[in-house]
Amino acid sequence: MNLPSKQAYVPFVSVDNMMKLVLQIGVERVLADLVGEIEDDFRRWPKFDKTPRVASHSDVGVIELMPTSDGETYGFKYVNGHPSNMKKGLQTVTAFGLLADVGTGYPILLTEMTILTALRTAATSAMAAKWLAPKGAKVMALIGNGAQSEFQALAFKAICGIEEIRLYDVDAQATAKCMANLEGRGITLTACKTPQEAIEGAQIITTVTADKQYATILTDNMVGAGVHINAIGGDCPGKTELHRDILLRSSIFVEYPPQTRIEGEIQQMEADHPVTELWQVITGEGQGRKSPTEVTLFDSVGFAIEDFSALRYIHGKLAETGLFEQLDMIADPDDPRDLFGMLLRSA
Amino acid sequence: MNLPSKQAYVPFVSVDNMMKLVLQIGVERVLADLVGEIEDDFRRWPKFDKTPRVASHSDVGVIELMPTSDGETYGFKYVNGHPSNMKKGLQTVTAFGLLADVGTGYPILLTEMTILTALRTAATSAMAAKWLAPKGAKVMALIGNGAQSEFQALAFKAICGIEEIRLYDVDAQATAKCMANLEGRGITLTACKTPQEAIEGAQIITTVTADKQYATILTDNMVGAGVHINAIGGDCPGKTELHRDILLRSSIFVEYPPQTRIEGEIQQMEADHPVTELWQVITGEGQGRKSPTEVTLFDSVGFAIEDFSALRYIHGKLAETGLFEQLDMIADPDDPRDLFGMLLRSA
Repeated sequence: MNLPSKQAYVPFVSVDNMMKLVLQIGVERVLADLVGEIEDDFRRWPKFDKTPRVASHSDVGVIELMPTSDGETYGFKYVNGHPSNMKKGLQTVTAFGLLADVGTGYPILLTEMTILTALRTAATSAMAAKWLAPKGAKVMALIGNGAQSEFQALAFKAICGIEEIRLYDVDAQATAKCMANLEGRGITLTACKTPQEAIEGAQIITTVTADKQYATILTDNMVGAGVHINAIGGDCPGKTELHRDILLRSSIFVEYPPQTRIEGEIQQMEADHPVTELWQVITGEGQGRKSPTEVTLFDSVGFAIEDFSALRYIHGKLAETGLFEQLDMIADPDDPRDLFGMLLRSA
Repeated sequence: MNLPSKQAYVPFVSVDNMMKLVLQIGVERVLADLVGEIEDDFRRWPKFDKTPRVASHSDVGVIELMPTSDGETYGFKYVNGHPSNMKKGLQTVTAFGLLADVGTGYPILLTEMTILTALRTAATSAMAAKWLAPKGAKVMALIGNGAQSEFQALAFKAICGIEEIRLYDVDAQATAKCMANLEGRGITLTACKTPQEAIEGAQIITTVTADKQYATILTDNMVGAGVHINAIGGDCPGKTELHRDILLRSSIFVEYPPQTRIEGEIQQMEADHPVTELWQVITGEGQGRKSPTEVTLFDSVGFAIEDFSALRYIHGKLAETGLFEQLDMIADPDDPRDLFGMLLRSA
């Protein structure tokens, strides 16, 4: 057979190589790096080709494609969300992603993104809190202690200086798992029996539960003045975590309004309910927290630009770490018009 | 490190394995098999979740995602179109695709699709001609002799009984390449100096040129009564091959009207110009060719369901051929809530 040309190969980061890469650099360092990359891309937000993700819903879950482009590089993520997977011993969310050169359309990176999505989601949450949470916040409530929880905890420690985390989950085993994984990381951990107990004394409340349904994790009377709420779990139509009354007295910050109005907590509100785009807070075009008593809410659903930033980051680490394989994914005959001849000659 | 579980692996068909698979089964047999698969899926067209492809356009080309689902299996293709690539020695069109289980969202196949797209495009063209071309057609004009041309030629031979092909390309070297590749395949081949010469005596006219611009490959006076036109090259906004007058006197058949009205030859026409959906001809809900003198036109732009059929076909060949690798693409911890623990334990 003919050997494929260099163009035929796409660098591929397997799950194994992603884990090696993250451990080699260090989880908290990766999270901080990602905050830098995401902020860089949020600062040039208007440059991006943006579209709500393309979702294919079924009774049990959703499969989504999340593309974006900055005009030079194109990226997309494939991601599913299947709350029922856990009972089958499978991940609720799995993902992979790709970067391509806009000039040629040729892919330049394929990578696992289950782990990378967990990292970028936590980095985005911590970035938002960096801009919105009350000054000097040291205590966070972490409601929902599943696959995303440790990443959230470490991101808030590394980026926001959180020192104490109060954990709650409907399943005490999830809390125990999360606490065991976070042991020795310099965070004071307290297991709580109710959401009410978890939010006692917390300046930041992170909700990260996975039910695909309207659920009320937080009610209005639970949320005190000055708190920052980081709502991660309301991320598809029909899935929310917060009572409507909380939204009515919060200043709401979102990633991309056309997507958040369909998928986020604000799907409970009127279509013109006021929101501020997070990127505008970062560029100074929008206002962040206005007072120490204001309740701020980051209604996070995840947006393609965050994945793009994460993909750019991994692409930038390839040469330095060597943690990738070359995948024979692109047919690239010597004469580009001779695809059929390449096939014949491979005999 | 922990070994990934079976769920973590996604069967991957490389370019090399795709070529082996096609040669092992035989090109014409694969084309005929694909027509069967595509017809099966066209017969159950209403069952599919359909959306126009999600395109990201730039000055030099386009990158597209083409998703669809039949409720049990989800598929999508990544494909680019960059006419300027050829001058750089690169493919105009490259692609890869994925199938996933709707019930879990876990991928079940990743495959190269540059070669597979060439095959499914030719199979779709021949399938349409099987239903629309005049009875007893033996001669085809093939205008545009690039990467797709040989696949078209063999599909029309295998499925429609074409015995003679009259070739034309602005570049005589492309014609020579195509003829050399088709030698000994039982088709009478004639190189022509003009499009006019190529269509002499042809009952089927296939146009498959690649310029990303409005071009007039065929003018009205060139198209005689009773001809079937298979127009492949007009497949993105601003790119057409046929003069408007031809469209005015043709019965036009399309894949998915919302997409074809943007991308196909009919982007030149009013938004309500009458068209018939090809799947309805196959199910009998729509009428195909009405008379021997009618001009029929398949305004082909390619649709996600054809890729889905092709992906299903390749997925069905995995066990039999063994022509795939296992890709460590999905993070799958023993406890699905313990993604972070999996990362820690990989140290």
